[in-house]
Amino acid sequence: MMNKPKLVIIGGDAAGMSAASKVRRENSDYEIVVFEKSGFTSYSACGIPYFISGKVGTYEELIVRSPEEFIQKYKIDVRVFHEVIEVDTKNNQVLVRNLNDKTQFWETYDQLLIATGGKSFCPEVENREAEGIFGVQSLKGGIKLDTFIKKNKPKTAVIVGGGYIGLEMAEALIIKGLKVTLINREPEIMNTLDPDMGKIVNTVMTSLGVKIYVNEELNHFEAKENRVTAVVTNKKTIKTDLVILGMGTSPNTAFLHNSKINLTEKGAIKVNREQRTNVKNVWAAGDCAMTYNLVSKKPFYIALGTVANKTGLVAGTNISGQKARFPGVVATAVCKICVYEVARTGLLEKELLALKMEYIQTIIKTKSRAHYYPDAKDIYVKLLAEKGTGKLLGGQIIGEEGAAKRIDVLATALTNKLTLQNIIDLDLSYAPPFSPVWDPVQTAARKLINEV
Amino acid sequence: MMNKPKLVIIGGDAAGMSAASKVRRENSDYEIVVFEKSGFTSYSACGIPYFISGKVGTYEELIVRSPEEFIQKYKIDVRVFHEVIEVDTKNNQVLVRNLNDKTQFWETYDQLLIATGGKSFCPEVENREAEGIFGVQSLKGGIKLDTFIKKNKPKTAVIVGGGYIGLEMAEALIIKGLKVTLINREPEIMNTLDPDMGKIVNTVMTSLGVKIYVNEELNHFEAKENRVTAVVTNKKTIKTDLVILGMGTSPNTAFLHNSKINLTEKGAIKVNREQRTNVKNVWAAGDCAMTYNLVSKKPFYIALGTVANKTGLVAGTNISGQKARFPGVVATAVCKICVYEVARTGLLEKELLALKMEYIQTIIKTKSRAHYYPDAKDIYVKLLAEKGTGKLLGGQIIGEEGAAKRIDVLATALTNKLTLQNIIDLDLSYAPPFSPVWDPVQTAARKLINEV
Repeated sequence: MMNKPKLVIIGGDAAGMSAASKVRRENSDYEIVVFEKSGFTSYSACGIPYFISGKVGTYEELIVRSPEEFIQKYKIDVRVFHEVIEVDTKNNQVLVRNLNDKTQFWETYDQLLIATGGKSFCPEVENREAEGIFGVQSLKGGIKLDTFIKKNKPKTAVIVGGGYIGLEMAEALIIKGLKVTLINREPEIMNTLDPDMGKIVNTVMTSLGVKIYVNEELNHFEAKENRVTAVVTNKKTIKTDLVILGMGTSPNTAFLHNSKINLTEKGAIKVNREQRTNVKNVWAAGDCAMTYNLVSKKPFYIALGTVANKTGLVAGTNISGQKARFPGVVATAVCKICVYEVARTGLLEKELLALKMEYIQTIIKTKSRAHYYPDAKDIYVKLLAEKGTGKLLGGQIIGEEGAAKRIDVLATALTNKLTLQNIIDLDLSYAPPFSPVWDPVQTAARKLINEV
Repeated sequence: MMNKPKLVIIGGDAAGMSAASKVRRENSDYEIVVFEKSGFTSYSACGIPYFISGKVGTYEELIVRSPEEFIQKYKIDVRVFHEVIEVDTKNNQVLVRNLNDKTQFWETYDQLLIATGGKSFCPEVENREAEGIFGVQSLKGGIKLDTFIKKNKPKTAVIVGGGYIGLEMAEALIIKGLKVTLINREPEIMNTLDPDMGKIVNTVMTSLGVKIYVNEELNHFEAKENRVTAVVTNKKTIKTDLVILGMGTSPNTAFLHNSKINLTEKGAIKVNREQRTNVKNVWAAGDCAMTYNLVSKKPFYIALGTVANKTGLVAGTNISGQKARFPGVVATAVCKICVYEVARTGLLEKELLALKMEYIQTIIKTKSRAHYYPDAKDIYVKLLAEKGTGKLLGGQIIGEEGAAKRIDVLATALTNKLTLQNIIDLDLSYAPPFSPVWDPVQTAARKLINEV
């Protein structure tokens, strides 16, 4: 009797379990083993700020499927509290540490999928490991933070970095009644927007009560009895009971540094559009891997739940013997901070400059509903397009209720290489409670087309 | 000295004034004369239900630009209370009645744009002209209704027809405290949706307190002293203080029946994509004219503010000597009834059957936000696609806050002939307050693709 082929997956969250489920659905022959270093599978890391704020009552609500469910219902051998610490691609095996009993063993594979995700980036500064400093990229981190808040009742928090997670955590901590300070290296927060749009987000965050220090960089932390007491920047010392890391995500790939698997300088696994690495039978998906930007036509790193789910599905499809190709991203992302919505897609001015692409741009301010409809709110739309052709290159939106999801029209436009004229020509929906007659994205296109 | 060329426009609302403004911006040579039979220009007819409900305090808020503003600021000779009653294309002139002093005169033109809009359709039944029966396609009609309600304090209303306007007026009258009954000829209301989705709207409307009678058709009205007292259907007599006509829009083109201008059987003016009629130097735009459906690739009638604005702009561009072509519509429309949102785009099953197109379809029910996020609400998405290719043919959405505007992604997809796989591949925005990881439109596409 032939042995079943064995798929080993490292990491049991979105990318890994999407792949595992797909392989199980398509090919019941595979033995599937998943090593997950935490006790959790398939949870929404994006939901952690809402668990912290209390909008979501328990962390269990963030879990889509438990290890037990995968084991019993899907016959997927999920082994939680197991960390892979080395990959030996020559002998098709991985070295696994059982975090419960501290034993180690080698596990062989026929196919290997690396889906270890990312962690909060933090430079190796003094007191980096002190208690009270939290990343919220993993559920484990989220639960630790929640426990810390309940036990220590902190009154102040410093958020280091003004990206999505930083802003969502600012909202969460404001709701919990903390005094929140945010430090940001660049002149404007949210560097996934252009500075002119980021400036609007600065104003919004300030209006919500967040104290913002821009042009300030983390130098180190102060601690007393291994508990954080202050954040020290290049300019000042900010006393605090709690620190949230919001400086972006770095791939969890330290265990691969001695392997034959190609990584970028920042540690992301290089993959092709089928999610294959350079090593035969080794695949990667999710926040630990690179992806592809459809607008710049270049490899690209972005840590997002949608991409993790989709690249996991592509890897699983290919591993199961079918063909799939990840189409790439246009880098669409949205974020809600209290009543404010922020969205972006495509390329930023700084990216266009680096690519030496000639572009035109505009920002318009209009209303999200018919001007006379109650609660019509300001909405800002920025569009970037190619000089000469008018081909859309990027879009950014800031507004209140109903503003952000409009980015999806621009994302669809980008994917299909639409021009400003094509956007103007779209038959978008209109009724007074939803939009002015010309949707704000079309109003922006109508303004910008004059400069093509 | 040569005379200035003269553009005569019949109708001073969205289409007519978009054209007038465009011609003025592009070509200051033109003498522009606008005949408008009411006292108003450039108002939002779509806003009338919100004026009736009181959400919009005064009808003046619905007016974008007054006749005086056009006259003084734009040098457009707007003559309100002037109705064109005949068009003589042989001699390039129109017969105008001054509604103030009842005089008549001929006005010549070099270019003529017909933009007379539409009116509430009603068959010529008994007591059709009784007081208390209202269409709300024009601001004049809206103001009359508002005055009637304030004066007579009606307690009951019957809405004849279950289209967008009928439903929006139902909301308005419920807010005003009236007991609302709706009669509908088809088994499900909202025949711009497929019956399976219309059924969901029936349930929604009933839950809001509207009494609905389906499979009932208007026979005639009863009246006492020329005031409506009841609606008589093929099944029963419904006593009422007030009637709203919601049986659709018919083009205001009776004055053209003896002209050389080609009309459809239902009276819509036939135009090409430049908004030209069959007669040289005569153009038409807005609710009085036909348009073109990009999905069926056939001429199409739809009365919408967006189309009126856009076709007016196209006509104005061409009249001013530049080139423009109306791209056509995919028949996107949205409607809000209390907290519920309804949206549609593309073709219905009945239209696909009539076109003998082989299609597949699915309805999914999912959530508008991450399942754990507070106030995640049900959202229904129906997709229709071509059998064999998976090319999108239509989409319908019903849900609560944030549901309807998702139709714009489907409208963009339709315009660009995207397949279900293309929709699945889109990089749409995700964060827990906005969407599940897979946007509902993608979840529907993922389900339907199995049937291609």
